[in-house]
Amino acid sequence: MFRTHTCGELRIADVNKSVTLSGWVQAVRKFGSITFVDLRDRYGITQLLFSESLNEQLDANPLGREYVLQATGMVRERSNKNPNIPTGDIEVLVDSFTILNKSVTPPFTIQDDTDGGDDLRMKYRFLDLRRNAVKKNLELRYAVNRATREYLHQYNFMDIETPFLIKSTPEGARDFVVPSRMNPGEFYALPQSPQTFKQLLMVSGYDRYYQIVKCFRDEDLRADRQPEFTQIDCEMSFVHQEDVLEIFEGLIKYIFKTVKGIDYTEPVERMPWQEAMWQYGNDKPDTRFGMKLLNLKYPKHVFADKEDNAHLIEGANFQVFESAETVLAIAVPGCSEYTRKQLDELTEWVKRPQIGMKGLVYIKCNTDGTYKSSVDKFYSEERLKAIADAAGAKAGDLILVLAGTEALTRKAMSELRLEMGKRLGLRKSDEFKLLWVVDFPLFEYSEEDNRWVARHHPFTSPKPSDIEVMINNSPVIENPAEYLKHPYANIKANAYDMVLNGNEIGGGSIRIYQKELQQRMFEALGMDEQEQQHKFGFLLGAFEYGAPPHGGIAFGLDRLCSILGGSESIRDFIAFPKNNSGRDVMLDAPSAVDDKQLEELYIQLNLPKE
Amino acid sequence: MFRTHTCGELRIADVNKSVTLSGWVQAVRKFGSITFVDLRDRYGITQLLFSESLNEQLDANPLGREYVLQATGMVRERSNKNPNIPTGDIEVLVDSFTILNKSVTPPFTIQDDTDGGDDLRMKYRFLDLRRNAVKKNLELRYAVNRATREYLHQYNFMDIETPFLIKSTPEGARDFVVPSRMNPGEFYALPQSPQTFKQLLMVSGYDRYYQIVKCFRDEDLRADRQPEFTQIDCEMSFVHQEDVLEIFEGLIKYIFKTVKGIDYTEPVERMPWQEAMWQYGNDKPDTRFGMKLLNLKYPKHVFADKEDNAHLIEGANFQVFESAETVLAIAVPGCSEYTRKQLDELTEWVKRPQIGMKGLVYIKCNTDGTYKSSVDKFYSEERLKAIADAAGAKAGDLILVLAGTEALTRKAMSELRLEMGKRLGLRKSDEFKLLWVVDFPLFEYSEEDNRWVARHHPFTSPKPSDIEVMINNSPVIENPAEYLKHPYANIKANAYDMVLNGNEIGGGSIRIYQKELQQRMFEALGMDEQEQQHKFGFLLGAFEYGAPPHGGIAFGLDRLCSILGGSESIRDFIAFPKNNSGRDVMLDAPSAVDDKQLEELYIQLNLPKE
Repeated sequence: MFRTHTCGELRIADVNKSVTLSGWVQAVRKFGSITFVDLRDRYGITQLLFSESLNEQLDANPLGREYVLQATGMVRERSNKNPNIPTGDIEVLVDSFTILNKSVTPPFTIQDDTDGGDDLRMKYRFLDLRRNAVKKNLELRYAVNRATREYLHQYNFMDIETPFLIKSTPEGARDFVVPSRMNPGEFYALPQSPQTFKQLLMVSGYDRYYQIVKCFRDEDLRADRQPEFTQIDCEMSFVHQEDVLEIFEGLIKYIFKTVKGIDYTEPVERMPWQEAMWQYGNDKPDTRFGMKLLNLKYPKHVFADKEDNAHLIEGANFQVFESAETVLAIAVPGCSEYTRKQLDELTEWVKRPQIGMKGLVYIKCNTDGTYKSSVDKFYSEERLKAIADAAGAKAGDLILVLAGTEALTRKAMSELRLEMGKRLGLRKSDEFKLLWVVDFPLFEYSEEDNRWVARHHPFTSPKPSDIEVMINNSPVIENPAEYLKHPYANIKANAYDMVLNGNEIGGGSIRIYQKELQQRMFEALGMDEQEQQHKFGFLLGAFEYGAPPHGGIAFGLDRLCSILGGSESIRDFIAFPKNNSGRDVMLDAPSAVDDKQLEELYIQLNLPKE
Repeated sequence: MFRTHTCGELRIADVNKSVTLSGWVQAVRKFGSITFVDLRDRYGITQLLFSESLNEQLDANPLGREYVLQATGMVRERSNKNPNIPTGDIEVLVDSFTILNKSVTPPFTIQDDTDGGDDLRMKYRFLDLRRNAVKKNLELRYAVNRATREYLHQYNFMDIETPFLIKSTPEGARDFVVPSRMNPGEFYALPQSPQTFKQLLMVSGYDRYYQIVKCFRDEDLRADRQPEFTQIDCEMSFVHQEDVLEIFEGLIKYIFKTVKGIDYTEPVERMPWQEAMWQYGNDKPDTRFGMKLLNLKYPKHVFADKEDNAHLIEGANFQVFESAETVLAIAVPGCSEYTRKQLDELTEWVKRPQIGMKGLVYIKCNTDGTYKSSVDKFYSEERLKAIADAAGAKAGDLILVLAGTEALTRKAMSELRLEMGKRLGLRKSDEFKLLWVVDFPLFEYSEEDNRWVARHHPFTSPKPSDIEVMINNSPVIENPAEYLKHPYANIKANAYDMVLNGNEIGGGSIRIYQKELQQRMFEALGMDEQEQQHKFGFLLGAFEYGAPPHGGIAFGLDRLCSILGGSESIRDFIAFPKNNSGRDVMLDAPSAVDDKQLEELYIQLNLPKE
């Protein structure tokens, strides 16, 4: 070893020990004829003291930032203690030293508050990784990884590796493909998830499987998406939905406890998908704060069982509300004194193309008990009060109302609620709120193809009570305009998402395990028998040999870590992330390859003409 | 849950409990009006007893092999106990049952001794995985995985994920490549190992890294190679070779102890590469048995310091020996009574194309003290005795001698030794013998390109004492015929392999960490500056910013598991392996993909003309 101790290890009890440390020069300070060096490694920083006798050697071999230094000397008590670091009571009086390697000046400072921009830090990722802030993130990731394995092992889950070179069966996102040299003209695909393999393992009787595994999706990268990402992938046999929720609620709580020291003891709320849409306009609501939606007007076929609040706005001859499909309101606490300018700015905010609303209606619930709104012309103070009461507003609150088509308006109101929550400081990064969203629709409508697509994936089972509806009705959509009236639109799935602070951190379902129902599902998605056989023949085949009831879940490890770490960006929790064009700027990958390589793979380029 | 207990759980203490079990029907036995069912799951087998009262229901719903069955009933003591299984003291008297899923007749029996051939079992891998023998293999693999993580965590190693979509830098094996849709004409490569990333992590200061990670090599598959395989990949900073050997010798011993219950306490022997070649003809000798090589004749420039035994065979005018570059012998214990037929068969064995020798010379050391050989014409009994003594033969042994060119003969003798060891039962699958092979040559000669290639990889450091030789000599080989006299041929590497029972289970090296030496290494391998920058610019760049001394190792998990499991085949220890053409016959992958997919990736097929 080039060291006897790490730079984070020495304490006052080690005084008078002769030690050898190795690490990086964080800082060099000269005081007269004495030189202090802060030596850094993964474990901490230790102060080295070079007395005058070493000056000749130091002059011949000057130390610079990020030099790799090995120093031997005696531990002694510091006269000037530093209470901010664990090694702050001691220093090492250096007898001898060796420069193990030099460093040119780094392009940015290796400190928590670095002066390096994003692009520079990505290019020199190996230096960025030296910063304490990034190191803490990777340590947190490792801790989550370990806690996950510990917990799942306790519950008899078994880590089983599934293959990476599989078959391309695009359904949803695009596959990355890999040309096969040994099978000319044929391609492997990289797995978007080990979904079918974990189901096969259930058929094989491995009743509790898990894997922390890389997955791949060739999607157009939105901010904070990565073409390769890591899942905690799990599957269980002989379970109902409730069993899965219990086990994995336990997993997340165990991670909270082990990694963050947080006792998350209360049971996690379970909210039907429809309720989430109704109350929050969103299937992954941030429940750290209230500000629930008041549904003043909405399409009855979407929310069939819901109370009707239309009387609160009807008959006022206010065309914006009259002509709207949906009218939604939230009561923003303590904002009744918003100025004209602030309200104008909010109006501009909802009119941005990303939100797409035409305008914003407000009602101020003044602290003196009066009401003032942008629609005073149409609504009496009494009617405003009735709306305010229905929205749960108190004196001092500001009511914001959006009106328009259902999907757009609900999404806009969800965004506005989150924005107001953020502005009011209600979305604290050190507060954690879990939620199960359950009872998702089984299908979504694809306008492009006028057919049903699987909301979760084609292996998710319908609710048992909805199986008859699925079997007894044709999936064909005769009238695209009225697809919501098709019986398939109301089929619910045995699917569930785990939501943390408004982010989906995991999702899963109870699976179909009957061959006939799986075939019916594929048909519903527009797959004919030949396509079914080509893509999923192995799974349909497996279902003939005694498939057990089973279900599972997958957590996005990158996202989970970023939320636990209090960050917005998953990149900060990935050692070597890619940028938004899917490039690794440090490696300069992807890159051109030799013609010879392509030839061997029986492919050639087919670039767009200029 | 569909069960209260597993099928491996119930004991005599559970008698009179009401339980529900779920599992697969292993067997159905009728005794008069009573039906016994063996119900199987991952944990074991439990006997179910269906009394007469259920016969009507059983007749309406007959049970078959591999049906998925849920049964509820009372645990009771068996009259006819089965001491061979942990649940053999009890049975469950069934009150009610549900067939959860049916099964068609499996194409082979789900038993330890299955009647299914290799191909059939690969196609129906999900059924093969049900067999106890295969399950035990995957359980062993999981146990090795867990033990590895535990041990490495204790020693401060941190699991850090490295990317799968990287840059193609073929040097040695071929890369699998992945066309990038977002970067037309460009390709990612799948990692052959995370080598450069783990080195970057060392530069970043993560001084102990590990990962259990998939790697990919597009090689022509020999038997028992897989295009994707799993490595236990490790790297450490501030270490010398001795430190790495110690830590990882500890890892393997910990795995032995934890997984196999074996106390492997003796220190692992360390053998220089040259010694392994000299004594065993092989750089991964099986040291479970002796039968070391007697080097009767050999090229002096390969084994410069070795004793000369040529006098034992010289001057006999036996042309086969006289004209040979190399003559090697082994003493096979107890085989002096081999018949003519047996000796002929052995001769045919060494003449097979895979071995390629022209013939075999034998000397029988008869139990009566006489000697009889196939070269009696040339050698007196006295001379035969001298050879026998030098080979360490005792009365009753058989000496086998091969002669020919150095490389071929040494390899052939190594194979013959292993074959004889196998025939004599000296290679026991439950005996484990570890060995470190050290001091490998840094370079190998590539005849095809008349240049040096890295024996391990281009990041392996030369022995410190050989650095001068490397720097002060040109890598150019003026005279290909005499490449062994080039100074580079004798440069030794700081590289080491761990060998278990004659298999390389791990290999690693102390790395180059100085930019200039790394450049020199690339040059030695025939890479000009531009190619160096294109392929490894990021690493050379990183070495400018304070790279610490570091080294590491990677173990082949698949192979390690197969040896621990006493099997010849790594496939048995992989859940979903590929066959020798790199195909997954269950999935039928690789396969053709849609033209649209290729178009989006800016590639097209370029198939060979018929």
